[in-house]
Amino acid sequence: ANPVYAGLGTTVFETMSRLARQHQAVNLGQGFPDDRGPAAVLERAAKALLEGSNQYPPMLGLPELRQAVAAHAQRFYGVAVDWESETMVTSGATEALAATIFSLVEPGDEVVLIEPFYDAYLPLVQRAGAIPRFVSLTPPHWRLERADLVAAVSPRTKAIIVNNPMNPTGRVFDVDEMALIAEIAEGADAFVIADEVYEHIVFDGMHHRSLLAQPGLRDRVIKLGSAGKTFSLTGWKVGYVTAVPHVLGVIAKAHQFLTFTTPPNLQMAVAYGLTQSDDYFRDLAADMQRRRDRFIAGLQHLGLDVLLCQGTYFANIDIAKLGQATAGQADDVAFCRDLVERQGVAAIPLSAFYSARPVRSVIRFCFAKQDQVLDAALERLAGLA
Amino acid sequence: ANPVYAGLGTTVFETMSRLARQHQAVNLGQGFPDDRGPAAVLERAAKALLEGSNQYPPMLGLPELRQAVAAHAQRFYGVAVDWESETMVTSGATEALAATIFSLVEPGDEVVLIEPFYDAYLPLVQRAGAIPRFVSLTPPHWRLERADLVAAVSPRTKAIIVNNPMNPTGRVFDVDEMALIAEIAEGADAFVIADEVYEHIVFDGMHHRSLLAQPGLRDRVIKLGSAGKTFSLTGWKVGYVTAVPHVLGVIAKAHQFLTFTTPPNLQMAVAYGLTQSDDYFRDLAADMQRRRDRFIAGLQHLGLDVLLCQGTYFANIDIAKLGQATAGQADDVAFCRDLVERQGVAAIPLSAFYSARPVRSVIRFCFAKQDQVLDAALERLAGLA
Ligand SMILES: CSCCC(=O)C(=O)O
Ligand SMILES: CSCCC(=O)C(=O)O
Repeated sequence: ANPVYAGLGTTVFETMSRLARQHQAVNLGQGFPDDRGPAAVLERAAKALLEGSNQYPPMLGLPELRQAVAAHAQRFYGVAVDWESETMVTSGATEALAATIFSLVEPGDEVVLIEPFYDAYLPLVQRAGAIPRFVSLTPPHWRLERADLVAAVSPRTKAIIVNNPMNPTGRVFDVDEMALIAEIAEGADAFVIADEVYEHIVFDGMHHRSLLAQPGLRDRVIKLGSAGKTFSLTGWKVGYVTAVPHVLGVIAKAHQFLTFTTPPNLQMAVAYGLTQSDDYFRDLAADMQRRRDRFIAGLQHLGLDVLLCQGTYFANIDIAKLGQATAGQADDVAFCRDLVERQGVAAIPLSAFYSARPVRSVIRFCFAKQDQVLDAALERLAGLA
Repeated sequence: ANPVYAGLGTTVFETMSRLARQHQAVNLGQGFPDDRGPAAVLERAAKALLEGSNQYPPMLGLPELRQAVAAHAQRFYGVAVDWESETMVTSGATEALAATIFSLVEPGDEVVLIEPFYDAYLPLVQRAGAIPRFVSLTPPHWRLERADLVAAVSPRTKAIIVNNPMNPTGRVFDVDEMALIAEIAEGADAFVIADEVYEHIVFDGMHHRSLLAQPGLRDRVIKLGSAGKTFSLTGWKVGYVTAVPHVLGVIAKAHQFLTFTTPPNLQMAVAYGLTQSDDYFRDLAADMQRRRDRFIAGLQHLGLDVLLCQGTYFANIDIAKLGQATAGQADDVAFCRDLVERQGVAAIPLSAFYSARPVRSVIRFCFAKQDQVLDAALERLAGLA
């Protein structure tokens, strides 16, 4: 078997969800909301399923959804996007990422990953034959430093992968960090793969800034979006890619041999969802913010050390000063194992998102849950600090 | 961009479907049925969508569907399959193929492709870093010859990809060819990737023999199936993989970073579909056979030279003796272009399925269409011979 995969474990998300079931734990590990998703979007999907075609839609996606993706970029980021040549639908953002990496990267290229990173990035980069270069962000500020990014690029850099808003840190990069990414990518003549799946989950009156709108980057950004995150329907696996025509064209070649296309009824419903009024998007952020506030207040009330959360549906706590440290050094994996077994709460150790220089003192909770679920978790966490 | 994709055109299926729309042609090119699919399966999907979870199902698929896949192997092929360790759900058979190839094959390995082959095979093998070795089948019998297969394998052969029933030829391999594949795969210590998506579309009282049931192959076969083909719902993109535990395990690693999972409501409906009584499967084959008979009779009535069709929903004609040959040599691509533009019927040139030694004298029609569509196509084809 190929060594990239032969050496890999199951994703930490799957493993923790399994442990959570096994120990009847409250599952705040794997990142998914536990609500039903917008009723009108679900009904659209059911209607299209029962009345529309269930045969192959066009390989690039239904025109309705591609038009909605282009209109969304104009509405939220002021970027003019030609739906016919610059947008494509994929079977989730993971497939979008795979198609982008497999098509743009050649064996021997380098790809810059910003740690902590989503666990799919590294095996995809390695399977594409590329060499990963790491930039490590550290708590509590998770700031992207110029010197680190400069050190990670080289004449062989083909792409920089940027997840913003950032899972698992909850960071939203500021204007200086955005400008830094643009400057370095331009200087290195590299693509920027902008994983912006949490674009509508940003708090405290801030708005997501897309790298698609970043001056100088339009020709080299591949923007990835996700209906799963934007409509709280993570099982649908509908994603979308936006890039200039010659870049999108080559990504489409990889897509056509990965999944070829995506269920048409789900595409139709997501098209409907993306053309909702601004209220929908405002309410989504407000709703997640309310949950964040409730959960974080509860953690702080327990005396836990909560890090800043500006976006995504993840909150992190620093465990360095809590009991379970081994020989003075925090062990986030052992901590999470204890937590699910003894306290009955599943969380994710941050070291799972690192490769080069793992941070071991932080664990992540997903707060996209019903109030009573969050409260039950908090109750079980009592006495931890 | 990666040269595997940079040099590729759009799939011939997509291109011909576009030309068909442009010329208001009857589209017998891209292979998909034009009916609605089984009503009960559609209703199950709608019910699960509106009442069930739309969040991430388990990465390997819903237990209900995986159990159904295992039970299906027992019922139709007499093979005992452990659903928990030997089955996985994918976002279509194309994703199953991609996950299988990316995970089992290493750069420098060789993979045997039997021409004519489905167009995804070659770019996936190349992007995996492997070297394709070709075995060419030729009309009118498309027989797999021992000498050709022997010549294609080497100590570096990692896998042989076998599509049976075979698109585009309509061949169903006989017991001797099956035994030959097993013998050569065992001798070469190679995997057999068995793309059996048309397993339930076999005619004239024959039954599909799965390579999973072939003596000696159980440990080295990866069987791929497709709900799209078995339930005439090609847009759903639900596929399934069956292989022994250690092989399935590594394919799952690739799957988790390609799409991670597949919409749960569609999985639930396919589980329901796969557990239908034998009547459903018998009726599917009988219905497709009726269409085949109607269409082939029509083609023969027009004086066209129709090749044998034992399975799949494709019928081929030999165009060598028809007018459009260039300098005495048939040109199937030019023929199909003329056909869509002048006659208003879209078909697929067989050379699109070849790499090494293209056959240029055959074109493929998809007959999985309503009677009136087939009749309209036949009317437009009048005068061709
Ligand atoms: C695909 S499972 C992981 C879900 C997720 O995005 C996360 O928990 O970070
Ligand atoms: C994925 S489009 C191709 C459909 C098909 O299987 C065929 O036409 O051969």
